[in-house]
Order: sequence, then C-alpha cells, then structure tokens
Amino acid sequence: MIILGLDPGLGTTGWGVIRAEGNRLSHLANGRFRTAPADPLARRLSHLDSQLAALIADHAPDAAAVEEVFVNSNPQSTLKLGQARGVILLGVARAGIDPGEYAARLVKKAVVGVGNADKAQVHAMVARLLPGVAIDGPDAADALAVAITHAHHLASARRMA
Amino acid sequence: MIILGLDPGLGTTGWGVIRAEGNRLSHLANGRFRTAPADPLARRLSHLDSQLAALIADHAPDAAAVEEVFVNSNPQSTLKLGQARGVILLGVARAGIDPGEYAARLVKKAVVGVGNADKAQVHAMVARLLPGVAIDGPDAADALAVAITHAHHLASARRMA
Repeated sequence: MIILGLDPGLGTTGWGVIRAEGNRLSHLANGRFRTAPADPLARRLSHLDSQLAALIADHAPDAAAVEEVFVNSNPQSTLKLGQARGVILLGVARAGIDPGEYAARLVKKAVVGVGNADKAQVHAMVARLLPGVAIDGPDAADALAVAITHAHHLASARRMA
Repeated sequence: MIILGLDPGLGTTGWGVIRAEGNRLSHLANGRFRTAPADPLARRLSHLDSQLAALIADHAPDAAAVEEVFVNSNPQSTLKLGQARGVILLGVARAGIDPGEYAARLVKKAVVGVGNADKAQVHAMVARLLPGVAIDGPDAADALAVAITHAHHLASARRMA
C-alpha cells in the first residue's frame, strides 16, 4: 500500500510518499511544493493544485493523510493556511481518496513518542523509521511523519476489524 | 460581459451572476451552494467544487470576484472559511479567470454608499440596482453585491485606460 502524507502551507507544502507492507515501512519519495509569494493568490492555489495532481498521477497512492493546520493567533496566517489546506484536501478527494487528518501533536506522539517533540526529533525519528531516506527539509519531514502516522492508524484499524 | 460574484463559506456559499453592458447592469441568476455539515470535510470541499464547476459551465462568466473572508476572533471558523475560500478561488482560476477580491466593507461602500451598511440595506440596494431580481437570501445578496462592485471596478479601469 502506497501512502501519501501532506503538510499543507500556502508558500511551502511538504509531501512524502511511503510504502507500507504489514508493519514494514519504506521510503518512496519526498519533497516540497512551492508557490511564489509575488503571484496573485488564485494563481498560487492553482499552482499548488497542479503540483499535487502531478504527484498523485506519478505515485498513484492508495491512501493519504493531511496534517491538521496549526491555528495560531494571527487570523491572516490562519486564513492563508486554510486556503492552501482546502486546495490540498480537494485534490486528494478528487483522486478518490478519503484523507486521514491528524493534529501535529498526535503525529509527533505517534512517531517520536511525545506530543511536544521538536522538529529535529521528528526528522531524526523519520530518518530512523525510513532507512536511506534523504529528507527535503522540515516540511517534508512532517509530511513523512503524517504518512507514517496514517500507516500505523490503518494497520491498527485492520487488526481491530 | 457576464460577471460572477461569490461569497464563500463552508456550509453556504452565496453566488450571483449579472450582465454588465457599459453602465447597464442586469440580473441573470443567483443562489446558494450548500454542503452537508455531517459529511467529512474533504467531501464537503469536493461538493462545493463540483457545484461551482457546474455553475461556471452553465453561465460561462467572463469575469468573477470573491468576497474577502471576514476574519473573526474564532480561529476554527477562520480556518473553515479559508478552506472553502481556497476551493472557490481555485475553481475560478481553473476556469481561466483572474478573480477580483473585495473586502466586505468595500463592497458595502460600493453598493450602498457606506462601509458599515447592514444586510437589509445591501439586499434593498441590490434589488434596486437589478430590477426584477428575486434574491435567494443574504449570502446570495452579498454575492450579487460583489458582482456589482466588480462591474463598477472594471468599468472605471476601462475609463482610465
């Protein structure tokens, strides 16, 4: 099973693709979608959408999960994140996938063991869980962590069934 | 020229389509896109997207404008609105239209003459500017007001050019 993880943002969206076979995880690809801050908002969202569509066409994931946006005290930042996240969720849904959604805290707890782990700890644990991975920065590390969390969640759901 | 106005929201998005010929405006259609609160978020966004795509296919607008979201003190509401607004902007951009964006205050000032006009005043003035219109509630009235604002803006831009 191929799982896509996404950490949405308007300027940078991290993504990571892993393969899960039973309890064995392996890395397939990771990276970042970028949009140009100088472009009009609608063009940035459109660019984000086409990058996601190309990635989904390349990797044909069976499942996907999206990090829940960190809602901070700046409403303008929350709005920007929301707009990017809406486009990402739509792109996943359009591919016929019902996306999982996980709070950052839950992702850290699933991957590192504690909900308040810092970026370096997430990066180190993702690198340990996916041997040989070269991680394209913190957003891609978060996206891989979301994919790993979803893999764990789907495996427990199967065990329960 | 056919102009589409949109007042985005996750539960209800108001829309209005008008025709502008020089300074003459006329009403073509207005209504609401609804999504079911009980559905998962990604499905709601996907449903919103397909309703917008059908409307654009029906009316083939030449221009479109989207109300700027009212950013309030509840970050969760701002996030929901942002997600819906991202999907709406993407749908407009995908149709090859560069959307105008107007703050609610500016729309009220353009249509009623004062930035703090209430919903009833916006409704009454939209009804006066578009004779014969039957308005499908306050969100549709706001959307028609956005379309009228965009018509005025495009007309002044043409005069300046």
